[in-house]
Parts: sequence; C-alpha cells; structure tokens
Amino acid sequence: MRKSIATVSLSGSLDEKLTAAAAAGFDGVEIFENDLIAAPMPPEEVRRRAADLGLAIDLYQPFRDFEAVPAGTLAANLRRAEHKFSVMDRLGATTLLVCSSVSAEAAGDDALAAEHLHLLAERASAHGIRIAYEALAWGRHVDDYRHAWRIVEMADHPALGTCLDSFHILSRGTDPREIEDIPGEKVFFLQLADAPAKAMDVLQWSRHYRCFPGQGDFDVAGMLAHVLRTGYRGPLSLEVFNDVFRQADARRTAVDAMRSLIALEEDTAPLLAGDRADRVPAPRPAAAPAESPAILHTPPAPVVPTGFAFAELAVPSDTGGLGRLLAALGFSRTGVHGGKPVELWEQGDARLLLNSGDGRPGAAGPHLAAIGLESPDPAGSVARAQALLSPVLPRRRAPRDVPLDAVAAPDGTALFFCRTAHPDHPSWTDDFRGVLDGPTPGAPPDGDGPGPIGVTRIDHVALTQPWHHFDEAALFYRSLLGLRAHESLEVADLYGLVRSRAMSGGGDGEGDGGASGGGEGGGRGVRMVLNIGAIPGSPQTSWQHIALESEDIAATARRLNDRGDGGRVLLPIPDNYYDDLEARYDLGAARHRELRELGLLYDRDEHGEFLHLYTVTVGRVFFEIVQRIGGYQGYGAVNAPVRLAAQHASTAYDGVTRGAGTRRRPEG
Amino acid sequence: MRKSIATVSLSGSLDEKLTAAAAAGFDGVEIFENDLIAAPMPPEEVRRRAADLGLAIDLYQPFRDFEAVPAGTLAANLRRAEHKFSVMDRLGATTLLVCSSVSAEAAGDDALAAEHLHLLAERASAHGIRIAYEALAWGRHVDDYRHAWRIVEMADHPALGTCLDSFHILSRGTDPREIEDIPGEKVFFLQLADAPAKAMDVLQWSRHYRCFPGQGDFDVAGMLAHVLRTGYRGPLSLEVFNDVFRQADARRTAVDAMRSLIALEEDTAPLLAGDRADRVPAPRPAAAPAESPAILHTPPAPVVPTGFAFAELAVPSDTGGLGRLLAALGFSRTGVHGGKPVELWEQGDARLLLNSGDGRPGAAGPHLAAIGLESPDPAGSVARAQALLSPVLPRRRAPRDVPLDAVAAPDGTALFFCRTAHPDHPSWTDDFRGVLDGPTPGAPPDGDGPGPIGVTRIDHVALTQPWHHFDEAALFYRSLLGLRAHESLEVADLYGLVRSRAMSGGGDGEGDGGASGGGEGGGRGVRMVLNIGAIPGSPQTSWQHIALESEDIAATARRLNDRGDGGRVLLPIPDNYYDDLEARYDLGAARHRELRELGLLYDRDEHGEFLHLYTVTVGRVFFEIVQRIGGYQGYGAVNAPVRLAAQHASTAYDGVTRGAGTRRRPEG
Repeated sequence: MRKSIATVSLSGSLDEKLTAAAAAGFDGVEIFENDLIAAPMPPEEVRRRAADLGLAIDLYQPFRDFEAVPAGTLAANLRRAEHKFSVMDRLGATTLLVCSSVSAEAAGDDALAAEHLHLLAERASAHGIRIAYEALAWGRHVDDYRHAWRIVEMADHPALGTCLDSFHILSRGTDPREIEDIPGEKVFFLQLADAPAKAMDVLQWSRHYRCFPGQGDFDVAGMLAHVLRTGYRGPLSLEVFNDVFRQADARRTAVDAMRSLIALEEDTAPLLAGDRADRVPAPRPAAAPAESPAILHTPPAPVVPTGFAFAELAVPSDTGGLGRLLAALGFSRTGVHGGKPVELWEQGDARLLLNSGDGRPGAAGPHLAAIGLESPDPAGSVARAQALLSPVLPRRRAPRDVPLDAVAAPDGTALFFCRTAHPDHPSWTDDFRGVLDGPTPGAPPDGDGPGPIGVTRIDHVALTQPWHHFDEAALFYRSLLGLRAHESLEVADLYGLVRSRAMSGGGDGEGDGGASGGGEGGGRGVRMVLNIGAIPGSPQTSWQHIALESEDIAATARRLNDRGDGGRVLLPIPDNYYDDLEARYDLGAARHRELRELGLLYDRDEHGEFLHLYTVTVGRVFFEIVQRIGGYQGYGAVNAPVRLAAQHASTAYDGVTRGAGTRRRPEG
Repeated sequence: MRKSIATVSLSGSLDEKLTAAAAAGFDGVEIFENDLIAAPMPPEEVRRRAADLGLAIDLYQPFRDFEAVPAGTLAANLRRAEHKFSVMDRLGATTLLVCSSVSAEAAGDDALAAEHLHLLAERASAHGIRIAYEALAWGRHVDDYRHAWRIVEMADHPALGTCLDSFHILSRGTDPREIEDIPGEKVFFLQLADAPAKAMDVLQWSRHYRCFPGQGDFDVAGMLAHVLRTGYRGPLSLEVFNDVFRQADARRTAVDAMRSLIALEEDTAPLLAGDRADRVPAPRPAAAPAESPAILHTPPAPVVPTGFAFAELAVPSDTGGLGRLLAALGFSRTGVHGGKPVELWEQGDARLLLNSGDGRPGAAGPHLAAIGLESPDPAGSVARAQALLSPVLPRRRAPRDVPLDAVAAPDGTALFFCRTAHPDHPSWTDDFRGVLDGPTPGAPPDGDGPGPIGVTRIDHVALTQPWHHFDEAALFYRSLLGLRAHESLEVADLYGLVRSRAMSGGGDGEGDGGASGGGEGGGRGVRMVLNIGAIPGSPQTSWQHIALESEDIAATARRLNDRGDGGRVLLPIPDNYYDDLEARYDLGAARHRELRELGLLYDRDEHGEFLHLYTVTVGRVFFEIVQRIGGYQGYGAVNAPVRLAAQHASTAYDGVTRGAGTRRRPEG
C-alpha cells in the first residue's frame, strides 16, 4: 500500500522533513500546518519541492474547532476555512483533516455538527477539496470514531468522509471492529500510531509518547485489518508526536518509520489471508476492490538466530588489559586470523574475537564492535535485513576469506550472520589458524593460560543504545531477527535512571521466533539486552557487556578465587547487599555464606534461580558470568543498581590492579 | 524546625549524598534502603560518617508489604524485619517507615493489619525502634492517611505511630484538615514533597515527578500548618523522587532543597500566626507544646524589584557586531566606566552595559552576564538572598566605585540590586562618565549614531536555563525576589520541545509581590522568562534575549526599515505566518498589510494585544522589541515556534550581512 508520514513525526525544517521522508521511500506526506507556517518556502515552493522528491501531499492538517458552534463563530470559521482552502490550492493538497471540536463554544448537537460539516464540505468541493472528519480521543462531544462516522453519515455530502486514527481509537479502548461498518470509500484517510501503555491524560499521552507501529503496546495490525476490510485503499500514514523523535536525526527516524510500516503490513497480511474464503461478504459498495491480501507487501520471512557464533571486541594494537582479563577468565587464544590482526579466544562454546586492526577504540578503550549470530540461512537473514532497510555493511575481506555478511544495528554494532562448522556452509572459523606464536598473555610463563573456569557459551549480550534510538533498536531486533521484546524496565543508577529491555528468541521450545523462524539444531537462541542511560555522555550510557554461561558458577567463582584472580578481576559487591539478601530470602546459612564469600549475586523468578557475577570494566566493556537454574527467564535486573554503584566506585581495570571499591570479605 | 532529606532525593553515592546534605545545612537524613545496599560502607561506617558530618539518621525506609498477610508470610515478614532492625541497630536509626501493603496477599482487614503492626512494634521496641506506618497513595487496601491512622489507633502500641507524606495525601486530593485529629506525639514522621499537577498514574507520578515544596502545584504549606497544629515537632523531611534530580549535581540539589524548606516555613508561618488567639484548643494530649509559631524560621521579607536598572552583556574586546546592532536599534553609547572596559548604551530608560573585560564570551560570543534590578532596598535584597542560600558574589570594584551587591542566579547570571538615581542612595551610574572618545560604532561617519527608534525600557529578559535547573530557577526567582511564577508552557522548536515559564512581579497594582514587597515609585516591575531546551548542547538551549518596549512599534519598525536597517538586523518572518494570521484573525486588510510589511508578529489575550519583532542573534543573544496594548499579560509564546524556525534558518549576525532566511516581502 502507499505509505505516508506526517511532517510532525520528523525533526527539523520542512525541507529537512520532506527530504528525509523521500529518502526513506515514502510515497507521500501529511503537511502539519505549523510546519508550513514556520517555513520560509511559500506553499507553491513546497508543492514543487515535494513533487521533485516524488512525494504526494496526501493531507493538510489539522483544522480545529469548526463544527456545532453559534452562527457568529460559524461565519468566522468558514472565513478561516476559505483561507486554508486557498493555502491548499497553492500547495496542491486535496484532503483537509478536521478534528472534532474541543471548544467550549461547541454544542453537543449531532444534527448541528452535521449541518455545519455539510456546509464546509460544500465550500471545500468548490476547490476540489475533501474533508476528513476525525474524532479526537479528547474531543468535547465527539471522541469515538463511531460517533464521528454517524455525523458524517448524517451530513451526507460526497466531499465529506471520516479519518481514522489508531491512537484516538485504541488509546480509549474503543472496539475497532465496527470500523468494518463504514464503507471504504467514506474512509478518506487513515493515520497510524502506536503508543506504550500508560495510565495518563490521553492528550498528554498523544502529544508526547506516540511511537511507530510495533514500538508500543497497541494492536495496530488488528485495527488495520478492520480498516482494509472496508475497502480503504488510501495511504497508510504515520502521525506520531514523540518527544524523542522531535530531537533525533530526521533521516534516521524516517527509515525507522518506514521499517515499522513494512513490519506492520507483514503482521496484518495473515489477519486478512482467510478473508475471501471464510467471510460472508458484507453489503459493501461496488467501489471497494476485492484484492485486499495482494496489496500488502511482505518481506522475506525472518530467520531467527539460534545462538551466538562470536562476539568481536575492537581493541588497541596491544590487546593489553583485555587479553589478561580473558586469560584470567579462563579463555585461551586458540587462533589468529589469516589476513587481519584478529585473535580468536575460546572457552567451551564461547568465542571472542579481539580485533586490533579494524576498530578505532579511541579514548574509551576496547568496545564491542560486532556480534556473530548463528543463522540457519545467512543469505535469508541478509535478504530479510535488506527488505527492512537495514544497512548491509560492505564486505571487507581478502579473496580467500570466508564470505560473511553483516548489517549495522542502530547503535553501530555489526551483526554477522554465520553458520559455524556446518557441512553445507563455509565457516568463519576457517579463516583462523591455530596459535603458534607464544603463550596466552597473562598466563604463567611456562604454560598456555591458567585454564578454563567452566564457561560454556555466551548467554546474552547487553548493548547500550544511543539515547534517541531505543525504540528504533527494539523494533530493529524484533523485525529483523524475529526476537521477542520483553517488558521495559527502569534501573536506578547513582546518576539517573537506566531503561532496559530484553529481546530473545530462537531457542528450542521458546516458540517466540516469529512467523516462520524458530530454533534449529539444538540452538539455545539469542538473548540481548538493550539499555539506555539517562544522561547522554555519562559513563553508564556507554557500557556494554557480554554475559557468559557457567553450568556451575560456584565452582567457576571458586576456581577464579583459588588462583588469586577473583579479587583482581571481579567487581566487588558490598556486604550490605548480602545483609539485604538474607533479609529477603531464607536460603539457609550455608548458601548465604557461599554467595557472600564468592561475591555472587542472586535473583529468582517463578521459573527458577539466577546466580551471577561481574568483572571490572575494560574500556567500555565488562563481562558477566551467569548460571540459570530451572528455567529462570530474566537478567538479574534487580541487582543492576548494586552493580552500577560498584562500577562507579571502581576505577578502570588495566589488567594489573583491581577496582578501587572497598569490598569487605567476611571473616569466616 | 529541624530539616531532613531522604537520600533518594539526591544523586550519587551514599557518601556523596551525605556530604551534600550536610553542606546545605540539613540536620538529618532518611536513609533510603537501596542507597545503603549499594554502598560499600557498612552501616557502622555510615553512622560514623553521618555523625562526623553532623547529620542525624532520622529514618530508615521503606519496609514494604508487611501487614494483614497469611500466617506463613507474617513469619517471613517478621524474620525480614528482624534483619532490618539489626541493620538499624548498626546504623543508629530508631524510626522505621512501614508503607501500607501493595501485595496481593494482603487482606483488607483492619483488625488483622492492626494486630500485625502491634506485633511488629513490639519486636521493634525491643531494639528501641519505632514504627511509622504510612498510607501509600496506591496502597492495596490502605491509601488514605485517615485509614492508616485508624489502624495505628486500633493497634495501640507506644512504638507505633503514623508517617504523613504530603505527596500521598495531596496527590489524591484527600482533605488534609483531619490531620489535626491525630495527636502530635503519634505523628512519628513527616515527609514533604510537592508535584506539578498531572493527570496520570499516581505511582508513576510519585516516582518520577515529585519536586521540592514550592516547585509544584500542591498546597504543601497548608498541609504543614495542619501537621504543626497536632503538635508534631519532628523534622520536616524531604522525600523527592525526581528523574532530573537523580542526574543533577547533588550539592546543588541539596541547596535547592534547603531553600525550598526555608521558603516553606515562611509560607506556613502566617497560617499559624492567629492560632493561639483565634482557635479553640482541640482536646490535645498534654505533650504537645504550645509555641508553634515561634519555631518557624522566617527569613527577611522579600524586596520585590520595581524594574530593570540595566542588562549587562559580556563581549569580546572589540564590541564589534553587537555595538553595530545596538546602534542600528537606536541605542547610543552614553558613558564608559571610570575603571573598567565597560560601555553604557542607552535609549529611553533602557540601559545596556557592554563589558569587554569581565566576561569570557568564548566561542559562543556575546552573552548576557548580569542583570541590574531596581530595588527599593538593596541591602534588604541581599539579606534576603543570603537567608535563602544564594551565593553572594564577591565585589570586584575599585575603591572609588559605587558599592553594588550581586548574587548568582542558578544559570550563573549575576543579579545586581541597584537604586538608580535615587537621592538617598549612591547610583551605579555615577561610575560612568560621558563619552568623549568618538562616534558610536556603526553610526554614519559624521554623527553620533543614527538616533533612537522609540525604545523606552526593558520589558523582559529571557534566560535559557541549564536543563537540570529549571525548577530550581523558578523557586529561586519566586523566593528571592517575590516574583510570581506563571504557567509552564511547551514551545515546539524544530529540534525538540522547549519548556518556558514566565515570572513577574513588582509592578504597580500587580499585587503579586509577595508578603511585604510591592512596587515603589511608579515602577513597572520585572518580567523574566525562563526557558529550557530539550537537548543539552543544542543552539536553542543557549539563546538568551532582551525584550525592549516601544510605545509605537509600527513607528519603530518603520524607522528601522526607512533607514535600511530592518532587512539587515531583523529576523525574517515567513509570509506563511501572515497567511495564517489572516486566517486566524480578521484585523482588517490595512492592519494585516502593515504587520506583513513591517515583519511584526501578533498575539492577543483577554486583556489586550501584543506586537513584537526579533533581531538576528549575536553570539548567544538577540533582542526583541515589543508593544503591549491594553494590558496584554503574555509573551507571544504562540509565535515562538516561528521565531525559533527563523533563527535556525538564519546565520549568525556579524553586524554586516543579514540572516540567511528567505524572507519574502509582499509586492504591495
């Protein structure tokens, strides 16, 4: 279907908004009146500019507080309308949005409202303009789409129809099924927005918190199916008032917006698939076309990753502190890349790449630059990503290197689609040859590293998002990879709140792998955590971490401590935490003592228990070791404030000295 | 009264919070449990640290979900309580806050709740600890202070009392008068917070938007008066969960907090003043002391400024573009300072100082560094400022200079208290001597500037606040200067929303001058606008402006245009603005044509009309010229988005070329 976006959804000048919408592939725009008023371009120039960019002007909006008013106000309102019709003539816009009145002057008189709207439509039609009447969720007398439609029906003018807006309908919990009672040719326009569930004043909710479909909690696809069943064939148009989008880069927001519509079409298609066969056709005007399902664009099905192939860290040319930290954590350097300064470090099925050639770690030091995802179909993964407008990264490889495709995630992390050690597919591991050049750094002089401590695989990866790309990132991972977004949480950091949202999918039996994806070959799936810090530029807004699984974290921690690495590389957890843990849970004295001695953190949910510990931070990166017992589903978010406080108290790790925290071990 | 603050109200580590509270002069703190849990200091060390800083630990909080539960849970809860009593013993805290349960396990059974609380109080008393039971506004069964008090009364244990919290009471609109039915010795604690009026979920409102008394919309003083009438003599303790304070500098927030309590005491004192004489004493326990009014600290009365003495701009050593702009605007350089590189420019009663010696304008160029306020009693103004913890600036003056006192506003602007040309007081103008050294820059070579254009005085000054000091600034101006804060507005900038709040007072007959202030000698009072930009670091977050009054702005604009300065120094306003203005108002063709030709903006309110225009920006500063017709009270905020868009489109003014906007003048 045709796709439009309201200029108010994007930041910048009108020219910047139009340019961004066109670059993201939109077919048209709604011109938000205030954007035109503040623009230095006269309407004729806006019209030319849009035409040059291939954008239709699908709607001019909004026209407020028109109907059911006393005679004097009606005359002033019609005068005002004529001025706007003249602007629309110059702009080449042929549909005007009229919102239900919020004025104290307006009467709750449907017949009067219908009479006035008829009059307006008659005046509009002289300009070739149509009026789309919409019920605002906070309209004074008309706040329900069914009410607006009754008035439009009563007014009975060919130039008068209704505009449906998913926010105004779904925010009030109005049943959207009766949309199907409206003839499609009387639905003059469709505005789409999602929003997070919030118990707050609906006007403030609408003005500040709308988001793109798939980023909130509304069933926008369900509503769209009802609208399409009316025969509506106009544009799907996004009208999103959002405090963050107002500040973000317009070009990026426009791509995010377009991605949301592609995913929305995909989500809506199955809802309409059975329509022709299953539904008794309602009495419908002949004009409504019958080919509903065909018009929905559906991208290639998602290929849900089945696990992590690797995590790649950009490091300075001397792998330094990070190499020593990895050695202490039991990793061994098992390979070096044939053509690039990249080392492979392994422990169990956890694989880390240290790349000292590609990344520019800069002042912040080492950071997580890329993630390798196990994909049952790497080519399909890439095709899906491309269809969802994700930037496919140029392959920088030597002729002999194994082909490896990657896309850029919203925070700049590269996502590689891999098929590790599979007979039908070249494996990225073939690019690495065994280590011949000396012992692992940090290892005893006569050995090859102090040896494994029980890490089995990567459990999850936590990435801190740029502050204005949090919703974009959640939609990206959900739509591209078919991951499921979990509830958004708030974590109290010493210097502000951190928002955190987990995404997961692809595990056996998880059943959350999207339309056609799903685990393959015993994969454990992928789990990711997206964080966003409160203050742009503060340390907690850049930290990233890799959580490693241990099947016996107590043994792992003991091994670390026994060889003297614990105090050196582990983040000190305050004794006060253990005092509180004893108050909250009665785990038995022995277990409490063990947790305290080993510096393990504890959580539980209805499925099981979670034990974890953290390392100090090197550059922007730290590691977590986790043990999930009995199907625990979370990420220990309850302990994150303790971890953050300890991180602020710790100095950066240089591989030699330990954090500056004042950890006190119990006497026992 | 004693003053406390909950550690959750301040950012940083527990040690940083304690240090900040002590530095601001607090007598005690509430230890918020999560702050202790995340702290590396054990309770004994926190106790020592607080004692060293002179802080009492007035409360440990919160203990949740205790009462009216099944037997098994009760046992676990008592076990949990014993652990917390032990922490409190180590901490030296003797009062524990217990909030009403939100647990699904809790029964709506007051007798059971009372029984359990009795049990808890009995256990607590063995440790010398008291239990303060508080109704959360979102408690499952107990959400009203009267209900919590009934249960405490029923439980009837000497170690059990109630905690009153202004947010929990006022957010629900509960009548606070019945507080007086509680005996003062059973009010174990009082927590104070204000909040802006918001229609939203009360839990979210409480967790994110609380603010200090006087910064929101609650009648905290009214409630405090009821509490003091009970005979309560415990601390006034601030418990404020606020997303911004979590991120701001703790030392600054603590001073802001203390200032709010000083102002609160001052606001409460008159409410209690008539008590002894007018009120029939209610049956009250003998323990309640009778000297209520005496314990409230009241600072010296505010001295409301009657007008602007001057505005001082920090400029580079070459006054350059700014001098040329002032000359074009009709200002003349009328004096230079006897001992510093400061020029005085005047037009009518508008006085501007250009200081090229004091400020370090830096990369951003000229900025507003100081404001001179006409004070009927400069010494009283300073005494008031000191009592409200405002930093009094060191006097940097030569021995012969006129003494001039200044305090620093939250955004760093210096506020000077002046008495210009008054027989009983030395005038700052005496430091300036007439100009002998050449013509005004930008003036025709043979004259002394192009001459005045009808500016009569400074109408208002608009300052952009650092993003985390907006509420602090409003409280600062309200409490120090006795200004009245107007409604907070949102203005749509191209790159985010700007919050804007006007403050005014001191004008004749305005009657908003605070307790003892008020206009003097025909003063017009002062008006200030505080703005805060959405994105830290973006251009709109640093702009400041000085609005100048003209009594005939059309003549002023015509004079500017006639001599060719209009197109050079005025911000171009798009024609689309005038098309919309014609649609909105029918002012007659001639008046619309004049507005459009002269580039004037228009607004009206119920009192009158407002005409204004803007100059281009030099450094961080621009000028506005305004005409208020018939008592218009606003600031033209409706036009601010148009101004902001034009500013973004304009290049910086260098005194020679004009802005890059594409202003189109009508043919006519």
